[in-house]
Amino acid sequence: MNQLSWLGVNRAILTVPVQKIEGSSSAAQQDLLAVEEPLEIRICDRTVSITMRTPGQDFELAAGFLFTEGILGGAEQIRQIRWSASDRNPRQAGNSVTVELASGVEIDFARLERHFYTSSSCGVCGKASIEALRTQGCPVLPRDAPLIDRAVIHRLPDLLRGHQTVFDRTGGLHAAGLFSASGELLAEREDIGRHNAVDKLIGAEMLAGHTPLAQSILLVSGRTSFELVQKALMAGIPILAAVGAPSSLAVETAHRFHMTLIGFLRDGRFNIYSGASRIQ
Amino acid sequence: MNQLSWLGVNRAILTVPVQKIEGSSSAAQQDLLAVEEPLEIRICDRTVSITMRTPGQDFELAAGFLFTEGILGGAEQIRQIRWSASDRNPRQAGNSVTVELASGVEIDFARLERHFYTSSSCGVCGKASIEALRTQGCPVLPRDAPLIDRAVIHRLPDLLRGHQTVFDRTGGLHAAGLFSASGELLAEREDIGRHNAVDKLIGAEMLAGHTPLAQSILLVSGRTSFELVQKALMAGIPILAAVGAPSSLAVETAHRFHMTLIGFLRDGRFNIYSGASRIQ
Repeated sequence: MNQLSWLGVNRAILTVPVQKIEGSSSAAQQDLLAVEEPLEIRICDRTVSITMRTPGQDFELAAGFLFTEGILGGAEQIRQIRWSASDRNPRQAGNSVTVELASGVEIDFARLERHFYTSSSCGVCGKASIEALRTQGCPVLPRDAPLIDRAVIHRLPDLLRGHQTVFDRTGGLHAAGLFSASGELLAEREDIGRHNAVDKLIGAEMLAGHTPLAQSILLVSGRTSFELVQKALMAGIPILAAVGAPSSLAVETAHRFHMTLIGFLRDGRFNIYSGASRIQ
Repeated sequence: MNQLSWLGVNRAILTVPVQKIEGSSSAAQQDLLAVEEPLEIRICDRTVSITMRTPGQDFELAAGFLFTEGILGGAEQIRQIRWSASDRNPRQAGNSVTVELASGVEIDFARLERHFYTSSSCGVCGKASIEALRTQGCPVLPRDAPLIDRAVIHRLPDLLRGHQTVFDRTGGLHAAGLFSASGELLAEREDIGRHNAVDKLIGAEMLAGHTPLAQSILLVSGRTSFELVQKALMAGIPILAAVGAPSSLAVETAHRFHMTLIGFLRDGRFNIYSGASRIQ
């Protein structure tokens, strides 16, 4: 594609020519796009995942993916994260990450099949998906801690938007923000995939030795699915809030593991779907 | 989870108790959620995919997934689609679909690994992802047909919203709508996963013998990724429009296969990222 340039300083944004149509008038302009490129995640020499993501914080994405999917238990199991060796084209450089394990760490590669949604006792259903989380080592949260003031919850979306860097320019990214119990923004990540934004965020915290994140709130810019609840639970996050709606299975999973799940957090309102006792 | 009832008439919607917070006041109410449950897709006795989806049109979802991923070439390769046999719990019933093949049809199960994002010549990069589409049999569209009036494009989002059944009640679903070149809504599907909504839509059209959809427009309610462009191309759809933003790789893929890609279609405006010659 000749019109596009891949030489921008920021690998997360690409400038492209676009026809802007407004009513019956049109104009040729430049527009900013969120970059989408595949990332290969390897453990030693084995490819365990290829995901479409927005480049940036790729070591954290790899670490967070392996941690939130229950494949690695923590930073102490990782010896090194590095770019995979490649003599291939420049566009490929930076699209493959290799995680080297600390000596003695064994991986259950069967788990990498990602068939977390079934269990032998129950077959394919949401309940089996939830029970599979238990066998993955997903913790049940302690009830009722921390206690959060509802005014703190109301403030979160504006704080996250104030820190988003790529989203406001492209309109194409999901954001995930981690907040303290008093509403301080601790970290923020963006990606074209909402699960990737959460993996980048949790991966960074895990690598920094901050997990479990027992006193924190996770805010996501979109909707809440089972997968996002799973990832937050693996990191021990007790409160998950979203600007959009939750799914049925997200709510059911949050109940089962005593997570506080908040949806439709915008315009001075929100809904509490589970764990209301944590909100004062 | 005791508070939830799974006995609703509509398997796509679940009613749950919720605390509604508005400023400093709160009220206990009922809220509607989009249902999220896993669906297993089997070819004969082999599981080829488990995806989280909103129940409904599951045979079409299975057919559309296999078709848009390049695993099956058309309805004539399918002998029967049926629920997988199960003696398990009632919640699991309806979460597993088996596709039986017509006699003589061979499946390349290696393709089911879903490593479409790499090719041996180029490694892991967006360009390799695009080239992999060619080897999957993804067609390059004929240039410049059909010709669409821009007023038709402006009308599409309202037409789609007018037909959405679950979304307006839950706020949790993505919608995909198929339109004729004159802007008539031909079909509409919804799902918690935007790729599933598109698979359901294209699966229904494929089973009805309507593919390739060479004279039609696909509208999606969210953002456009590489995966959605891929799925539309496999069905021969020349125009893909989205209410949200496209990714860089979506735009690059659209250029490569001569697809018209439209983004930010709302409030009387839109952007044309590729294939502007189809819009009058």
